[in-house]
Amino acid sequence: MKLGVCYYPEHWPESWWPDDARRMVEVGIQYVRIAEFAWSRIEPSPGVFAWEWLDRAIATLHAAGLKVVMCTPTATPPKWLVDADPGMLAVDAHGQTRGFGSRRHYCFSSLSYRAQSARITTALGERYGQHPAVVAWQTDNEYGCHDTVVSYSTAARQGFRAWLQQRYSDIDALNMAWGTVFWSQEYRNFEEVDAPVGTVTEVTPAQRLDYQRFASDEVVAFNRIQVDILRQHSPGRDVVHNFMGFFTEFDHHALSADLDVATWDSYPLGFTQNFFLTPEEKRHYARIGHPDIASFHHDLYRGMCKGRWWVMEQQPGPVNWAQWNPAPLDGMVRLWTWQAFAHGAEVVSYFRWRQAPFAQEQMHAGLNRPDRTLDQGGLEATQVAQELRQLQAHLPTSYQQAPVALVFDFTSIWMAKIQPQGADFNAVELSFRAYSMLRQMGLDVDIVSSSADLDGYALVVLPAHLREDAALAARLANSKAQVVLGPRSGSKSEALAFPDKLPPGAFADLAGVTVQRVASLPPGLVDSVHWNDGGHTEASRWREDLACSTAAPVAVFADNRPAVTHNGSTWYTAGWLDAAGWRRVLGLAAQAAQLTVQDLPTDVRTRRCGDLQFVMNFSGSEVQLAPATHAQCLLGARDLAPQAVSIWKL
Amino acid sequence: MKLGVCYYPEHWPESWWPDDARRMVEVGIQYVRIAEFAWSRIEPSPGVFAWEWLDRAIATLHAAGLKVVMCTPTATPPKWLVDADPGMLAVDAHGQTRGFGSRRHYCFSSLSYRAQSARITTALGERYGQHPAVVAWQTDNEYGCHDTVVSYSTAARQGFRAWLQQRYSDIDALNMAWGTVFWSQEYRNFEEVDAPVGTVTEVTPAQRLDYQRFASDEVVAFNRIQVDILRQHSPGRDVVHNFMGFFTEFDHHALSADLDVATWDSYPLGFTQNFFLTPEEKRHYARIGHPDIASFHHDLYRGMCKGRWWVMEQQPGPVNWAQWNPAPLDGMVRLWTWQAFAHGAEVVSYFRWRQAPFAQEQMHAGLNRPDRTLDQGGLEATQVAQELRQLQAHLPTSYQQAPVALVFDFTSIWMAKIQPQGADFNAVELSFRAYSMLRQMGLDVDIVSSSADLDGYALVVLPAHLREDAALAARLANSKAQVVLGPRSGSKSEALAFPDKLPPGAFADLAGVTVQRVASLPPGLVDSVHWNDGGHTEASRWREDLACSTAAPVAVFADNRPAVTHNGSTWYTAGWLDAAGWRRVLGLAAQAAQLTVQDLPTDVRTRRCGDLQFVMNFSGSEVQLAPATHAQCLLGARDLAPQAVSIWKL
Amino acid sequence: MKLGVCYYPEHWPESWWPDDARRMVEVGIQYVRIAEFAWSRIEPSPGVFAWEWLDRAIATLHAAGLKVVMCTPTATPPKWLVDADPGMLAVDAHGQTRGFGSRRHYCFSSLSYRAQSARITTALGERYGQHPAVVAWQTDNEYGCHDTVVSYSTAARQGFRAWLQQRYSDIDALNMAWGTVFWSQEYRNFEEVDAPVGTVTEVTPAQRLDYQRFASDEVVAFNRIQVDILRQHSPGRDVVHNFMGFFTEFDHHALSADLDVATWDSYPLGFTQNFFLTPEEKRHYARIGHPDIASFHHDLYRGMCKGRWWVMEQQPGPVNWAQWNPAPLDGMVRLWTWQAFAHGAEVVSYFRWRQAPFAQEQMHAGLNRPDRTLDQGGLEATQVAQELRQLQAHLPTSYQQAPVALVFDFTSIWMAKIQPQGADFNAVELSFRAYSMLRQMGLDVDIVSSSADLDGYALVVLPAHLREDAALAARLANSKAQVVLGPRSGSKSEALAFPDKLPPGAFADLAGVTVQRVASLPPGLVDSVHWNDGGHTEASRWREDLACSTAAPVAVFADNRPAVTHNGSTWYTAGWLDAAGWRRVLGLAAQAAQLTVQDLPTDVRTRRCGDLQFVMNFSGSEVQLAPATHAQCLLGARDLAPQAVSIWKL
Ligand SMILES: [Zn+2]
Ligand SMILES: [Zn+2]
Ligand SMILES: [Zn+2]
Repeated sequence: MKLGVCYYPEHWPESWWPDDARRMVEVGIQYVRIAEFAWSRIEPSPGVFAWEWLDRAIATLHAAGLKVVMCTPTATPPKWLVDADPGMLAVDAHGQTRGFGSRRHYCFSSLSYRAQSARITTALGERYGQHPAVVAWQTDNEYGCHDTVVSYSTAARQGFRAWLQQRYSDIDALNMAWGTVFWSQEYRNFEEVDAPVGTVTEVTPAQRLDYQRFASDEVVAFNRIQVDILRQHSPGRDVVHNFMGFFTEFDHHALSADLDVATWDSYPLGFTQNFFLTPEEKRHYARIGHPDIASFHHDLYRGMCKGRWWVMEQQPGPVNWAQWNPAPLDGMVRLWTWQAFAHGAEVVSYFRWRQAPFAQEQMHAGLNRPDRTLDQGGLEATQVAQELRQLQAHLPTSYQQAPVALVFDFTSIWMAKIQPQGADFNAVELSFRAYSMLRQMGLDVDIVSSSADLDGYALVVLPAHLREDAALAARLANSKAQVVLGPRSGSKSEALAFPDKLPPGAFADLAGVTVQRVASLPPGLVDSVHWNDGGHTEASRWREDLACSTAAPVAVFADNRPAVTHNGSTWYTAGWLDAAGWRRVLGLAAQAAQLTVQDLPTDVRTRRCGDLQFVMNFSGSEVQLAPATHAQCLLGARDLAPQAVSIWKL
Repeated sequence: MKLGVCYYPEHWPESWWPDDARRMVEVGIQYVRIAEFAWSRIEPSPGVFAWEWLDRAIATLHAAGLKVVMCTPTATPPKWLVDADPGMLAVDAHGQTRGFGSRRHYCFSSLSYRAQSARITTALGERYGQHPAVVAWQTDNEYGCHDTVVSYSTAARQGFRAWLQQRYSDIDALNMAWGTVFWSQEYRNFEEVDAPVGTVTEVTPAQRLDYQRFASDEVVAFNRIQVDILRQHSPGRDVVHNFMGFFTEFDHHALSADLDVATWDSYPLGFTQNFFLTPEEKRHYARIGHPDIASFHHDLYRGMCKGRWWVMEQQPGPVNWAQWNPAPLDGMVRLWTWQAFAHGAEVVSYFRWRQAPFAQEQMHAGLNRPDRTLDQGGLEATQVAQELRQLQAHLPTSYQQAPVALVFDFTSIWMAKIQPQGADFNAVELSFRAYSMLRQMGLDVDIVSSSADLDGYALVVLPAHLREDAALAARLANSKAQVVLGPRSGSKSEALAFPDKLPPGAFADLAGVTVQRVASLPPGLVDSVHWNDGGHTEASRWREDLACSTAAPVAVFADNRPAVTHNGSTWYTAGWLDAAGWRRVLGLAAQAAQLTVQDLPTDVRTRRCGDLQFVMNFSGSEVQLAPATHAQCLLGARDLAPQAVSIWKL
Repeated sequence: MKLGVCYYPEHWPESWWPDDARRMVEVGIQYVRIAEFAWSRIEPSPGVFAWEWLDRAIATLHAAGLKVVMCTPTATPPKWLVDADPGMLAVDAHGQTRGFGSRRHYCFSSLSYRAQSARITTALGERYGQHPAVVAWQTDNEYGCHDTVVSYSTAARQGFRAWLQQRYSDIDALNMAWGTVFWSQEYRNFEEVDAPVGTVTEVTPAQRLDYQRFASDEVVAFNRIQVDILRQHSPGRDVVHNFMGFFTEFDHHALSADLDVATWDSYPLGFTQNFFLTPEEKRHYARIGHPDIASFHHDLYRGMCKGRWWVMEQQPGPVNWAQWNPAPLDGMVRLWTWQAFAHGAEVVSYFRWRQAPFAQEQMHAGLNRPDRTLDQGGLEATQVAQELRQLQAHLPTSYQQAPVALVFDFTSIWMAKIQPQGADFNAVELSFRAYSMLRQMGLDVDIVSSSADLDGYALVVLPAHLREDAALAARLANSKAQVVLGPRSGSKSEALAFPDKLPPGAFADLAGVTVQRVASLPPGLVDSVHWNDGGHTEASRWREDLACSTAAPVAVFADNRPAVTHNGSTWYTAGWLDAAGWRRVLGLAAQAAQLTVQDLPTDVRTRRCGDLQFVMNFSGSEVQLAPATHAQCLLGARDLAPQAVSIWKL
């Protein structure tokens, strides 16, 4: 559990560097990420490298005892490179080239840009791969940011055809998989196929899914080139990438297979404003961030690289890029940092050391203000560093598996996006809502891929696993866990068609139901859900008509059709439940799984990490909460002020 | 009164066909529409025809005793055709080509595509024109769907210039009609004229109107080529087209002049979600559909081909293409079917036999589920078929004129769309609201064109006849009917200019008023309408200041200016009335016309067809309603459950 | 104080002209603006001029005793010109050419179009420059209307590079000013630089600001060519331009430096519907217009040309171009006219003489209806003309400086638009809200540029002066005025970066504060502002955390941090205040400035012009208001009916 910071020496006078390094140490920083966007300074003209300044910057940090995380600068190819090879640029869905002037202006499918990326990565690896200060490498920055995974360039279209040839071998197999007979779209050969864009109305959905798969694979391939080079030139260092929040355009599990550590960029307030929360939630959490946004991603990214993960960019104050950019309440930067450690982060690295007074992010706070004074975030980071030193002896060195697994499947997310069937069916939100209820019930969660080992979990939740997944169904059938299946589970084949039998397809035996009919519900159309054990909750957005083979209803809709069913150890939810509905079905499943549920006070969360128990108060009032009586309080107290955290040794 | 179904044999294994045909007969289906999108199967490569499968499909249906409605597959030109002639594609308002990958990817003005369309139609006509199973031909599918009437291709621009040359002969006449002097847009010859698109601000409105007229004419011309071929090769068969709901981009009256039967595609739930209803109406009617949406179109399309009309596609369950896609309540498919027969349909054909498990419409229900089991819609169709057989002896063979005519004029709709003057002035909605009130008053309505024979109508309503129409005004002056004119009546010349005198132009003598000033009212700005005989209602969106020449006010606005006037047998409404206001003015006119008005219970509708009287309950509660005491109940009863229908012999 | 009208003789039969001229005189019109869009009539073919009709039109007006304002017709280049030089067209942000078919279809940077503009201006100047009827020239029409200031044509891109070369000389200076190091965007020479458009994400903000400056300079340069020609060919006549409302895309102060008179086009109802007012305000003011919209611009444009200004287009009834177009209440046209005179207008010219029955503006009222009858606006204009004649002896010939100056800075507006930081931070609205409160407090206001002489003002308000402005800060420090600084004052350097010290930069000594942190507040997130002297108001949208060096808080936020501070004669507001908050801080400053504040009844306004005092009732009820007891009532009375005006001699 260590602190880091993102630093851009090229943004500041060289004369400031030694003081910056000294003050980083003073704050308690140990890791410094550099060179992320520095290509134009490293190679100001084609083939002309200017290493000296970077050598000196690294030396300055090293001399101060800091460890360096080097970046490949490939998110920002310089102007001379773009001018020499305009074909490397991405093309958007309207056929417009996405040009120079900001960042991420390259197409993952451009073979010439891949060569440039390999060239600059090799140059950096050769120069700094063995440097004693360098402990890790970050490839590129935030793959996919600004909607850059999918491109419709000539290179991408050619790449897609080759990818299809590889996937299907035979054009008849493609025609069958895509159902091209539907609207006379049958192809006679792969050369006739093109990108799914620019059509009169909805394009073939299976073609869209394959294009998404192809685009995802291109990101993985692009990254792997850098990883291979870095492993060769910088052995023993961690190779990492910094992922984003609520971003699902490529398969992060697939890309992570090539990394040592998954890192992600955590901006709780920006995400609260920009994503699917209700206006009421956006207002309520404006200065706190929804408590489960950060932890959802902590738990997700912990599942990528065998438990090794960092926060590469931690929000340190107001940001500049959300629709609205409120300031965190005092104490939130500290609380977010401890929350990351509670979920097992190795490193929490703040973005950024000092607010830049110029360019796009000049309104993005840093640990320091532009005038070199420590900002609120800097003060709180200093406090955390001190607390970490105090707790040194107690910090866990390994993590323990959570009792609950939540399965998150990128292909399923793409399927729901391509065929939402109702304008507000958002599979990411559905996953988040189920996750959030588990957290409010005091349960720790591992978010895992569909191919993860499920041994040891008492409860496995699949909120939005649209993809028919026979392998997973088989593993679930053999597991001892209670299983909760969300609506639309197993409703799509790998080719984004109906499963051979009705939904939930491969999960049908498990659930003991088949789906006879589905309906998306317009805003305001709400169905009531009446529970066998009394009371009712509500469903909106989505409902299904089930036929029960072996399942029994535990709740029914107003028309008496099953709303939630139970079959052996499997629970199926035939609608988009409200929070109270999730609480009911997850409570039943948790009970069957013999898990202890503790309904936490509003906006309070707990987490176990190793033998430590964390209690975090995101609410506006003091709360009183302690784990089991034998626990020893290492930090904070039973009485928790707003924004406070307590840590207990179990 | 017969049932049909839409079937795509090419989507299913050939081994399923005989069973499908047998089960269709079992359900009570008599008509089967096929081959709609099958071009790539019929002609897999240029000039290479694969007739055998289609021969066998028709033979299978024929053997089962089913009648076949053949389609020309021109809505889905195959890839090889598009690749060979990319100039056939439509171009959108942003200059982007609308490419292959879905359907309707052709420009009506492409002469080369017209030749292809003629070629495939001829081939089909030659092969199946005399086949004993074939009783009708559908041209193309849903002309204009997905905003495809208007194109800005090179072919369309050239066609427009030729069309203008034809219309105006002399460029000075065009300059005068369009008022090009206004902003120095005078043209020196027709070659200088271009499509009304891509301008800095509002383009010349008369140019837009002419482009709409031209585009409409192109659809008619495209269709006529197919009609002529089919009449030659398949004499004695009906030639039909399947129109859409709330779709007014081309003049359906003009196109219908070439058809034997007008058919349309009725999706009450999808239309309820996607069109102009209020959020409250969308919620209330989510699973029923607004009761007047289907009937509005039934009455509209009955007016196209001398009373001959079908429902070609009847919603059988949830669809996939609306923003939200709720499921119909049990009983609605039956009720919709009977509603169509109540309005005089010859055939009601369900879309589709079986839900396709793949491609764009995989979430669109059919009479059967993908697993070949009968879905709810299939059960209800079966019931209707049985009931039809029971009533066989009583079914009417001819229809009788309704007492009320509502004039619907496509040019007026275009005029209001080009010059709404207030963002929510929607002429289609205005027509629908007047129609809906007539239906709630228990009145049967014929929706007719502006050139229809008005003899025999007691009441003629022109809710949105913006076009100054001297011929219609003369016929109304000579008629014995009461006439109700909506706001903006006669306010636009044929060239979309002011009429020579102030509005209502040619209707001024009839109405006895002139419009001194108009105002569109922003949301929340409401004017009260005080009625001479007491009480008040409200106007929103639109109001006019009238000067009365010979008219007398029957209601006034808050400022005492006339809101509704009466002049001889003509009533003029100087604002966008609410439902209660429509009830008042239509009530006054109906009374003057000696029509019996019956305010029906909420969401209940009646209709007379031949000597049968239908009562339909779209509400959620039981109602009691019977026609005159001497009537004999053929189906249902006086006590009507929700979603039930009763039929009475008068 | 004279009335004028906009007239288009080319729209009407020549036989109507004499009658029109006669009736204009009858109404009381003295000025007639003509030829604004008449290029295609003046020069029907390249180089072929048709002067005769225009000669006769001017002669007709002259014969009736009317004065003529001639226009250059460059807002509407004819088709033959565009066809001969398509490169003159502007290009939008999506790379699409903005074509012929409406108006303003030219790029200010096109050198060939500048030559055409000079050629037609010279021809007009030569023909009519010395005509005795001609008293003024209007250049072009509404520069920038329809978003036409910024273009991305090849000509504009080349112009931008030359402009940058001029501004920075050295590419390193540009790289430093723009902060291109941030994302590896460093340029090696000016040829590498391009327009700030088409990027993947946010483009370099300083580049956007410079592009806006460049585009603004291009408008000024385009206009200056015409001005120079007209001064040469038509000496002694006023050269004017008609500006727009709430339009800030170019620097109107810079352009006005070349004019004799600033004129503007006043459409109170259209602006009320189309701009930033709340839905409640849009409804409440739908038929009146917000009382301060017109006066805000009157006071703004009076500050452009040493006090000389006109209303060139006065709304005469409903317009056609707003989202909704309600009709003004009877009396409003008169009230608006008197309001303009109260603020010192030399001429109020109505748009337009007669409603055109054709083309884009056929739904835009005129003083006359299309049928040549006087409309309501015509009646009210007649009344004003009569009243002007009655008051002739008392009309002021010079204006006196207002006690309050409000600084309006176009560059600051651009800065806020480029970096709003919160989606609803609108600097124009912020300026308007402060202005409106001053007016409700009975204070007269001069809206001035940042370089204006501030001598004689008791109070200077800078609601949104984001630009760090050391020169202005120095002048304020030396002035005796009380100064009120809005949030974000001085927060941006000329290069749109942080000022060297923290905000408010150059204003820091004046305000005695520095801004430690800023936050934009999402909708619904409101901070309370507690005032030292009791009570509280609210802040929304924006707040800052201040450190006070020498300032003292006069109000604090809920967290006790300063919300409004006081330092010597300077007041700083650290948030977006509500109306009550503005009332508080402006009240404190006015009190310190020894200004008498009179809280006017709702929707009543007063204004002093020369030694006349105007009282105007925009409300719906009668009010009683008179200035000091000694005043003599020249028009109206102490009891003011709705929409009435009274004038008092002090
Ligand atoms: Zn980042
Ligand atoms: Zn269809
Ligand atoms: Zn104008």
